[in-house]
Amino acid sequence: MKLNCDLGESFGAWTMPVDDEIMSIIDQANVACGFHAGDPIVMKQALTLAKQHGVEIGAHPSYPDLQGFGRRSLAMASDELVACVQYQVCALLGMAEVVGAQVTYVKPHGALYNDMMQNTSILRSVMEAVSGVSKNVPLALMIQATPDNFSRQTVADEFGIRLRFEAFADRQYTDDGFLKSRQEPGAVLSEQEALNQAKQLLSEGRVTSVSNRSLLLNADSLCVHGDTPGAVVIARQIKALQVKQSG
Amino acid sequence: MKLNCDLGESFGAWTMPVDDEIMSIIDQANVACGFHAGDPIVMKQALTLAKQHGVEIGAHPSYPDLQGFGRRSLAMASDELVACVQYQVCALLGMAEVVGAQVTYVKPHGALYNDMMQNTSILRSVMEAVSGVSKNVPLALMIQATPDNFSRQTVADEFGIRLRFEAFADRQYTDDGFLKSRQEPGAVLSEQEALNQAKQLLSEGRVTSVSNRSLLLNADSLCVHGDTPGAVVIARQIKALQVKQSG
Amino acid sequence: MKLNCDLGESFGAWTMPVDDEIMSIIDQANVACGFHAGDPIVMKQALTLAKQHGVEIGAHPSYPDLQGFGRRSLAMASDELVACVQYQVCALLGMAEVVGAQVTYVKPHGALYNDMMQNTSILRSVMEAVSGVSKNVPLALMIQATPDNFSRQTVADEFGIRLRFEAFADRQYTDDGFLKSRQEPGAVLSEQEALNQAKQLLSEGRVTSVSNRSLLLNADSLCVHGDTPGAVVIARQIKALQVKQSG
Amino acid sequence: MKLNCDLGESFGAWTMPVDDEIMSIIDQANVACGFHAGDPIVMKQALTLAKQHGVEIGAHPSYPDLQGFGRRSLAMASDELVACVQYQVCALLGMAEVVGAQVTYVKPHGALYNDMMQNTSILRSVMEAVSGVSKNVPLALMIQATPDNFSRQTVADEFGIRLRFEAFADRQYTDDGFLKSRQEPGAVLSEQEALNQAKQLLSEGRVTSVSNRSLLLNADSLCVHGDTPGAVVIARQIKALQVKQSG
Repeated sequence: MKLNCDLGESFGAWTMPVDDEIMSIIDQANVACGFHAGDPIVMKQALTLAKQHGVEIGAHPSYPDLQGFGRRSLAMASDELVACVQYQVCALLGMAEVVGAQVTYVKPHGALYNDMMQNTSILRSVMEAVSGVSKNVPLALMIQATPDNFSRQTVADEFGIRLRFEAFADRQYTDDGFLKSRQEPGAVLSEQEALNQAKQLLSEGRVTSVSNRSLLLNADSLCVHGDTPGAVVIARQIKALQVKQSG
Repeated sequence: MKLNCDLGESFGAWTMPVDDEIMSIIDQANVACGFHAGDPIVMKQALTLAKQHGVEIGAHPSYPDLQGFGRRSLAMASDELVACVQYQVCALLGMAEVVGAQVTYVKPHGALYNDMMQNTSILRSVMEAVSGVSKNVPLALMIQATPDNFSRQTVADEFGIRLRFEAFADRQYTDDGFLKSRQEPGAVLSEQEALNQAKQLLSEGRVTSVSNRSLLLNADSLCVHGDTPGAVVIARQIKALQVKQSG
Repeated sequence: MKLNCDLGESFGAWTMPVDDEIMSIIDQANVACGFHAGDPIVMKQALTLAKQHGVEIGAHPSYPDLQGFGRRSLAMASDELVACVQYQVCALLGMAEVVGAQVTYVKPHGALYNDMMQNTSILRSVMEAVSGVSKNVPLALMIQATPDNFSRQTVADEFGIRLRFEAFADRQYTDDGFLKSRQEPGAVLSEQEALNQAKQLLSEGRVTSVSNRSLLLNADSLCVHGDTPGAVVIARQIKALQVKQSG
Repeated sequence: MKLNCDLGESFGAWTMPVDDEIMSIIDQANVACGFHAGDPIVMKQALTLAKQHGVEIGAHPSYPDLQGFGRRSLAMASDELVACVQYQVCALLGMAEVVGAQVTYVKPHGALYNDMMQNTSILRSVMEAVSGVSKNVPLALMIQATPDNFSRQTVADEFGIRLRFEAFADRQYTDDGFLKSRQEPGAVLSEQEALNQAKQLLSEGRVTSVSNRSLLLNADSLCVHGDTPGAVVIARQIKALQVKQSG
């Protein structure tokens, strides 16, 4: 299992300072594309850093909402959403070429991510967007690992897209395999809890839900949020677990 | 000499309605990239229309300034400007691929265009931006034809960029070969004046300046602004002149 | 019954050109506050024009969404929405003072308007916002006239706000007294249909719904949308009806 | 001499975390108005905090430039600039009333501040803006103390505005009494240098310029920038000096 993190989320004078430290630990960087964070300079810096560390790069598009950091749902029409995602992914793809790097997958951000997991028509719009951009270089789509992986891949097959599935180290799971909302207490796990959840995911491919159910999750990658307290520490310990496991 | 026009300059609910009519007349469309006009949907529509009409496509990047329509200078640092232009050009390049079209040149918009013609360091930043994006598909840079074409191409050679030079059908020229500012009266020519200026450019490669000087201008393309009154009529008549000349 | 229209909805180089003509006809102008349309210059011009014509002025705040013209729902937290509405209303109130005019009511725009009519917690946030701004000069809140006028005024009483109720001349009504969605065909009435609906509202206080039901609507004001085809003609004819009725 | 600081400069998920600590030390808070920083929620929090600490409140308007944090000059037309400043000041004035606080002065931010100190026509536009908003409650305008205080007050008298003059604790002065550009090394003083400069300003009303000239500066207030390293420490020590001096 790989380790991924959302990066390049500074904007102008405002910094999300995690990028430098965490880039040396992770396998995959989801780089913001300017609509929830990440101005053009910040994007180039994150892409350059990812390239230096040999980290795989994903585009991290969002609803257009700087003030809300992409965490508020926006009721876009399907053609608007397709074009909006394509614009962001295309911008990042091109910027990556400028610095000699490559983008290999797309992982939607924030409210768009949650909405596509709950609403098939939004998921299809995202897939249509990714499929349209994938003409020359095929891009995978990273979504949340749930018990529905299989049916979602069936939809993705229509669009000729390969899915990747991720689990979350630092977020509490509900009984039906989704994430507890950030509005609710306990949604973000403590450092120790996150480490335990990561261990369980790496060794058994399972998480324990809020009501103590053991859920089987088939995941390719493990996400640590850059703005979770202790993110760097958590990532470092997960990395150590990965190494031990693969050793 | 070709005929070019700035297009795709609607935004959301607001339209600049010239696109459909003029696309059947012109040779080259400079398509807005979202920073002064042109949201992602508008960009796709303009690119699709250009492709349908076999019109060559240029990226038309701007300072980030929707309210000012890119017509106000913004004092960006060089690395900011380079990244800002690259972001826009990359977004348009990718969107063009999505609709099966191709971008072949870059023509900066509004205040950025004027600033680069007056200020060599800004011109160099624009060239650096274009050069960085040109790794796979080389992009030309369209600038204003002036008596300094030669020296500007010398600078462009450092960046490995081919320049294209354009003259303006619908704008009054100053004695030193620049455009009279839009703030001054008489900056935008009447329909008849624009047609006369176009004739002179097509037949003699010359314009008559504000003080009646005859200026030699070596231009590859002639620009008609979409928001100039009578733009479609002017463009149609210039097209007829082109045909006659090449006939 | 008064006649109201949404105005000041140009932005930078893009115009919604209805303002000048319609201001001489209507009684109340809902002036955009910069978040879906209306930059600071446009706001001053609309306020000045309204003052010249003795037209009553309402603030017309929106979700922050220029590209979507405020017509897309945005899932804002309650405190975000309250502050967002207050910012816009305060800006317009102050700008009105600058030109010697006065704002007397608030009418939310687009998706925010529809959401507040469907969702009581959003309505309460809007009321909280209006109430907070009303400390010195009390502002009324204009909402849609429905069979629930009474219960909504009861909620408004908690916030010390007086409601005004409006009906729509140019939109088709559903059987339960709401507006047919703009996404559906027939949502916007033709010129003749709008005039008939206005007549019925003025003379009987009723509209005929999509399934031919006659609905009683207690409304203080009649809205004509500036971007409805024939808006000025419709407004002029409604004005004539008003005069005849009160004569 | 008073102590002032720029505050409320967070935006959405991005924080400029100095506000809470420094509010208990300073006399005057210059609160961002949303155009370079400070969304509506952030503004309300800063205003509430200022009120709690009995800190005087100034509006801190900027060019519209979130990405550049208002530190890049934008070539606005005079009527655009006037309306832009008025919009921001009006929004803050109204939001202050909402939380029961009061705004008593305006201090432009960043590039707008520097431009108005170098360019009289921009200064006049700012004065026109402030004068227009001051109809009910007169607002002072805070500008930089220079040897030209007297002539600037003469201009301000035309607009009926009272000026306030500020000096900078943490910035290196040029020989003609302006600030060394942030682009140049040594522009921002170290903690110890800033403290020494503050001492000299408080006790003698003088600063020592980059070439060791002693400049007389008639200032009412001393500015510490919130994002200068050690800002809180510097502010605390200046406060101690103030107390000692007035004791």
